[in-house]
Amino acid sequence: MARLKIKEILKNGETGSEVVAKGWVRTKRGSKNVNFIALNDGSTIHNLQVVVDVESFDEALLRDITTGAAIAVTGELVESAGSGQNVELNAKSIDLLGKADPEKYPIQPKKHSLEFLRENAHLRFRTNTFSAVFRIRHAMAFAIHKYFNEKGFNYLHTPIVTASDAEGAGQMFRVSTLDAKNPPLTEEGEVDYSQDFFGKATNLTVSGQLEGELGALALGEIYTFGPTFRAENSNTTRHLAEFWMIEPEMAFYDLKDNMDLAEEFLKYCIQYALDNCMDDLQFLAQRLKEEEKNKPQDQRSMDLIEKLEFVLKNDFIRLPYTEAIDILKNSKPYKKKKFQFPVDWGVDLQSEHERYLVEKHFKCPVILIDYPKDIKAFYMKQNDDGKTVGAMDVLFPGIGEIIGGSQREEDLEKLTKRMEEMDIPTEEMWWYLDTRRFGSVVHSGFGLGFERLMLFVTGMGNIRDVIAFPRAPKNAEF
Amino acid sequence: MARLKIKEILKNGETGSEVVAKGWVRTKRGSKNVNFIALNDGSTIHNLQVVVDVESFDEALLRDITTGAAIAVTGELVESAGSGQNVELNAKSIDLLGKADPEKYPIQPKKHSLEFLRENAHLRFRTNTFSAVFRIRHAMAFAIHKYFNEKGFNYLHTPIVTASDAEGAGQMFRVSTLDAKNPPLTEEGEVDYSQDFFGKATNLTVSGQLEGELGALALGEIYTFGPTFRAENSNTTRHLAEFWMIEPEMAFYDLKDNMDLAEEFLKYCIQYALDNCMDDLQFLAQRLKEEEKNKPQDQRSMDLIEKLEFVLKNDFIRLPYTEAIDILKNSKPYKKKKFQFPVDWGVDLQSEHERYLVEKHFKCPVILIDYPKDIKAFYMKQNDDGKTVGAMDVLFPGIGEIIGGSQREEDLEKLTKRMEEMDIPTEEMWWYLDTRRFGSVVHSGFGLGFERLMLFVTGMGNIRDVIAFPRAPKNAEF
Repeated sequence: MARLKIKEILKNGETGSEVVAKGWVRTKRGSKNVNFIALNDGSTIHNLQVVVDVESFDEALLRDITTGAAIAVTGELVESAGSGQNVELNAKSIDLLGKADPEKYPIQPKKHSLEFLRENAHLRFRTNTFSAVFRIRHAMAFAIHKYFNEKGFNYLHTPIVTASDAEGAGQMFRVSTLDAKNPPLTEEGEVDYSQDFFGKATNLTVSGQLEGELGALALGEIYTFGPTFRAENSNTTRHLAEFWMIEPEMAFYDLKDNMDLAEEFLKYCIQYALDNCMDDLQFLAQRLKEEEKNKPQDQRSMDLIEKLEFVLKNDFIRLPYTEAIDILKNSKPYKKKKFQFPVDWGVDLQSEHERYLVEKHFKCPVILIDYPKDIKAFYMKQNDDGKTVGAMDVLFPGIGEIIGGSQREEDLEKLTKRMEEMDIPTEEMWWYLDTRRFGSVVHSGFGLGFERLMLFVTGMGNIRDVIAFPRAPKNAEF
Repeated sequence: MARLKIKEILKNGETGSEVVAKGWVRTKRGSKNVNFIALNDGSTIHNLQVVVDVESFDEALLRDITTGAAIAVTGELVESAGSGQNVELNAKSIDLLGKADPEKYPIQPKKHSLEFLRENAHLRFRTNTFSAVFRIRHAMAFAIHKYFNEKGFNYLHTPIVTASDAEGAGQMFRVSTLDAKNPPLTEEGEVDYSQDFFGKATNLTVSGQLEGELGALALGEIYTFGPTFRAENSNTTRHLAEFWMIEPEMAFYDLKDNMDLAEEFLKYCIQYALDNCMDDLQFLAQRLKEEEKNKPQDQRSMDLIEKLEFVLKNDFIRLPYTEAIDILKNSKPYKKKKFQFPVDWGVDLQSEHERYLVEKHFKCPVILIDYPKDIKAFYMKQNDDGKTVGAMDVLFPGIGEIIGGSQREEDLEKLTKRMEEMDIPTEEMWWYLDTRRFGSVVHSGFGLGFERLMLFVTGMGNIRDVIAFPRAPKNAEF
């Protein structure tokens, strides 16, 4: 008989039918006469309750059925009395597939700290919390591909190893096959990268945007979805050294089109989660409530599912940076000197400012546009005022910046001038500038940090808990 | 008026309606009185024919409308006389968005060599061939996600930077932030990686499989789809230093289930291409015919679309390695000493042998199984004969190995013993072995090189022509 997935059994299993289920034991409890095994195979947050008539089975076998053990159960589906499910499985035969010594198996049926589970990231998929997180991560990734596919975008794999620093966006990881201890040197005594694998110095990409633009200015609309890297020594709950980014880039889109796309896109993903992941979301909502139950009322998060629905129901506020500065200057925390960082036209907004705008002032996601050019990248569209650029940052409650984007400067002369002002080597970037030399058009794009979206959708508080094997300073385990 | 994509105009555009089209000029031809502009916006291989009444437009404007220039055209759709399309666009107004100096623009309307276009990879998306290839690449990536999503698999992002060498699979790229010229040294005079970013020596992943198994043994079925790296100094038409791999991994699957999945999966992708990319496939089929027209009849490829349909119609042959050796030893080329490499039980089959089996003997895709254990990786399921392992390689015409996979050894003792025999450090791999310690189950998986699939589906001959920005020895441009 073919095995059925537990998700399928719980959804469509008919009482009276015989099935085979395979999975891992979450818990076993019961009395002298009857045992109840909660069996999970990863297909759903819900366990299948297996009912075992103790008399009919070998004692040694039942002793080995402990948390974490893998078993195959053949039996008859019966109406469930108390498992919270429609059906449960009356075991006729049980095969022990793999034991899990209770003295050694780390994932016992008790509350483990997230820190402990991070150290056991190879096994944390076997917990309710992390199986929910990673099923949702799959669903969000699929929603992203589905959305862009339906819109006629082409998925572009931009290079991971690159010789260019896209935005001067931060410190980079060097990629090399030269002898690490005694690298070959040039006559000037510098490392001779001409002898390296790629014949030049290379590093891990910080963004696929510039290559994405090359695709957009031919295929019309593209998106990337790939790993990006920052060698920043920041050990926070918001930063990773390796994370996944989605970067759509669109020919013929101006800043307004770009904002429309970003808002529609985020809402599509969130709607997809609500439509496809409700079981897992409900579990995580409950988890969040538990976790925050000792916090004072006013510091607790909004209910997870309410929060997602709230984003869907409201138009995002769209606001120039300059107006945001005015709002901040007129705010209570500013007047009471509660902000840690200064608020003046020209400064980059800090998390405290973004969160004030989103969570206190507007109580709604906000798209800030038209930032001062001096705090933004060289490629952004220069506005006529000479001071601002057509940037847009989408700010989300609890997260801050979830998307950063802009219209791109399509004018060769203006772009080159700005690059020179900012000491970006124009000669190395001949290929990027070629798109402005030949058939240049208005175009725009943005970047979404996938793990930021995951934090928002799952309600998890630490970015290391929404990626399978987090990479951070001093941490490359597994 | 909102711009319509050319794909939409050609499909649903009604004669008599007014539309705006934007795109890049592929060619302009015509007479003193009327110009015909072939306009393409990347949404389709087909161009929109724009008809320009020369008298109604400024001469200077028309002069600037050259190959590669970007324009926006407003006009009326009329029935097409000779463009091969249903409709063409009678231009009422034309905006020149971006020029393309014909003296400098590299992509002129003539046959460029693939080598030349590789050097201009930033612009080659603007050619028919490469726009077709990259639209198909998108479609294939989407088909892969769609397939696994429908089967209930979870997409898992396994780490790119890793401290482990999954299979001893080849030379690796080192990832580091240490001073390249004067790295810190330990007392023993070796590079002190404890001071490196991750606190240990790290490299770019060669495979996500081992981490994938961790996911499968909790979530049931997972797949990866991400970049992988080989620092091999091989400048061939089949190898890249950076390429994308798909690696499904499934709990409770034995070798037969694994073969069934691989065959169903490949057929799904190919069917998806036929259902969704026919225009592009037809163009590439024609391109292939052109390219091979000077070859002798018996060296020409099968028609591209026929080849794809052929794979769909036939069951893949499934054959033990041992029988394949017998077939090869009884073959004409073997007897006539035409094979370059030896054929003896225990050797790894070479491309010439694989191609003989697939293209001459069976004339069909072949899945070879049960390879000698000494030519396969440590983690493969040890067969009872003590000599072979439950490996499977899927061999395709023209490509050779397109998929490599196996059932995995789930027995802790056998696995550990094999690792020791092969000098794989078991202590470093504690996390991998934990899956065999706790709740171990029968499981299987395989890897598909995405670019290999792309070669097969597009009929392109060089792997550098099916990835946007190829990475190879001495080559990290763009």
